[in-house]
Amino acid sequence: MSNSLNSNFKRQRRSNKSAAELIQGIRSGNNADLAIGITILESTKQEHHELADEIINGCLPFAGNSIRLGITGVPGVGKSTFIETFGNHLIEKGYKLAVLAIDPSSQKSGGSILGDKTRMETLVRNDNAFVRPSPSKGSLGGVAKATRESIILCEAAGYDFIIVETVGVGQSEIAVRGMVDFFLLLMLAGAGDELQGIKRGIMEMADALIITKADMEESRKVKAAMAEYKNAMHLFPPHDSEWIPQVGSCSAISGEGINTILETIESYVNTTKLNGFFDKNRTAQDLKWMDERINELLLESIKNKAEFQRLSHTLSDQITQGKISPFRAAEELIRILKVG
Amino acid sequence: MSNSLNSNFKRQRRSNKSAAELIQGIRSGNNADLAIGITILESTKQEHHELADEIINGCLPFAGNSIRLGITGVPGVGKSTFIETFGNHLIEKGYKLAVLAIDPSSQKSGGSILGDKTRMETLVRNDNAFVRPSPSKGSLGGVAKATRESIILCEAAGYDFIIVETVGVGQSEIAVRGMVDFFLLLMLAGAGDELQGIKRGIMEMADALIITKADMEESRKVKAAMAEYKNAMHLFPPHDSEWIPQVGSCSAISGEGINTILETIESYVNTTKLNGFFDKNRTAQDLKWMDERINELLLESIKNKAEFQRLSHTLSDQITQGKISPFRAAEELIRILKVG
Repeated sequence: MSNSLNSNFKRQRRSNKSAAELIQGIRSGNNADLAIGITILESTKQEHHELADEIINGCLPFAGNSIRLGITGVPGVGKSTFIETFGNHLIEKGYKLAVLAIDPSSQKSGGSILGDKTRMETLVRNDNAFVRPSPSKGSLGGVAKATRESIILCEAAGYDFIIVETVGVGQSEIAVRGMVDFFLLLMLAGAGDELQGIKRGIMEMADALIITKADMEESRKVKAAMAEYKNAMHLFPPHDSEWIPQVGSCSAISGEGINTILETIESYVNTTKLNGFFDKNRTAQDLKWMDERINELLLESIKNKAEFQRLSHTLSDQITQGKISPFRAAEELIRILKVG
Repeated sequence: MSNSLNSNFKRQRRSNKSAAELIQGIRSGNNADLAIGITILESTKQEHHELADEIINGCLPFAGNSIRLGITGVPGVGKSTFIETFGNHLIEKGYKLAVLAIDPSSQKSGGSILGDKTRMETLVRNDNAFVRPSPSKGSLGGVAKATRESIILCEAAGYDFIIVETVGVGQSEIAVRGMVDFFLLLMLAGAGDELQGIKRGIMEMADALIITKADMEESRKVKAAMAEYKNAMHLFPPHDSEWIPQVGSCSAISGEGINTILETIESYVNTTKLNGFFDKNRTAQDLKWMDERINELLLESIKNKAEFQRLSHTLSDQITQGKISPFRAAEELIRILKVG
């Protein structure tokens, strides 16, 4: 997938479109422009920052109208197959969907698990769908930031459902929970919780828990797993949304249970729009987003200053020579800069 | 374990020890003082920050002399049992060890998986061991920061081996890799990679991969798994350390393979001290630590200012009323503050 990133960059450089042209393209449903826009958001190059800000600001007035879904589950649970079937179901219902996938797990070689095989083939080829893997490099914070901003661009492009998929179970789920309306956890029947590596904390965040591959297991097993998870869900503190998390099952192969999941999501949206939680949750997410963006801008502006860079360089040398601890060095820098 | 955190706080308040007294206690091997010190590091309360900084600065001159080990593996692989057996082996060899466990997975209820059962009982009761679970609340960044600083305190207390254990497989492993000398991945024979939820990226970071519960599996299965993992490890780019990651097996019940693991770690330390990587790696970690500490201090000092708080409050109101996007609000704040 890094190849497609590269080719996006090349195309962007070749086309050399302005922010206004890209915004125009994104708004008119041009997926190539949307892909270039997201590549610019993901770029860590200084020269792309300003362009990225312009694109986001241009898209923001047209954002906010999608249903944002987070989907997670351990590798092997069948996330791609589920999203493919669920996505095609959405398209049949007349919706457009965008899929953003987060996978910051391979930091060293930069190889993305997602890139190993072609995924969601029918969605990739459908004009009403947009599938985008995250960059395989970068910190979780950086990837989460780019994903949050990508949601804005996808919404401006007119997508009705934005699915944010996380691969693996852990910290990235917490980041995704902070940017979606509804959080769906996929589980297997049969395998023990422990082996599935599912943390209590992930289950707690879920608005629905769906047993996948229901066609491949005895129905007795699926029912037993559902009963077990229903019990487990009861032990968690009630959600602020007043929504009672649903437990269901589906088969992405036979299509069984797929429409029920959509109905569950629609019911959640209706319920929480009525009781005010939907908007309250988005506002809370927005406030957190502002805070993170402030952190980013503050650090960027201070660290770009020549005095900061000179000081940081000197102190780094002293650390390398073992003359000062990193902890003291940081204090020293702040003291000299007189930021406080 | 949150009970023990609470009782530590109570004890600290009761004893009301000064930073100097705590440093003295830590240095003289008083584990109660070490526990209080770590509780202060972990505290998010403003009034503990200064005390925490004093304690760290007081301990830093006596830090750096341990071997820092990261240990990870999915739930169910037997991490606690392994650490207990391995830890007792270290103690028999005359070493002291501290175990710091990171588990930021349950953010909502704050319940730690670690707290559900008594773990590492014999180590907990041994004077040559110190076992400390991470706080169950807080962001990964916050927990990682506290763990890094806790290493300093444990080293000042004279522990020869510091084990940083992560529960789960994902982003927290990357944080731990950034603070240890040697990274050990525990795996099960028999279960497929996918079900084990092990990411390629985690395997890539490992200096050794050990198949646990070797006594419970047919030796044929263990050998097959070892061969498979050896092959997999060969496909990764070579480590900067020039160390070839080792694949082995052990039984924490019978003790088989436990001493070989210690020998592997000693061999790694010798090799990398000779070729210079050991120190180079620690310096790189220190530079990253300085950078993170600078970020933290910069944001803290700016965000504590009255003008910042007034502006942030006004902009938050405007976001809540839907008058401004979080993205623009952040830009507005930076512009008015004139930080740039």
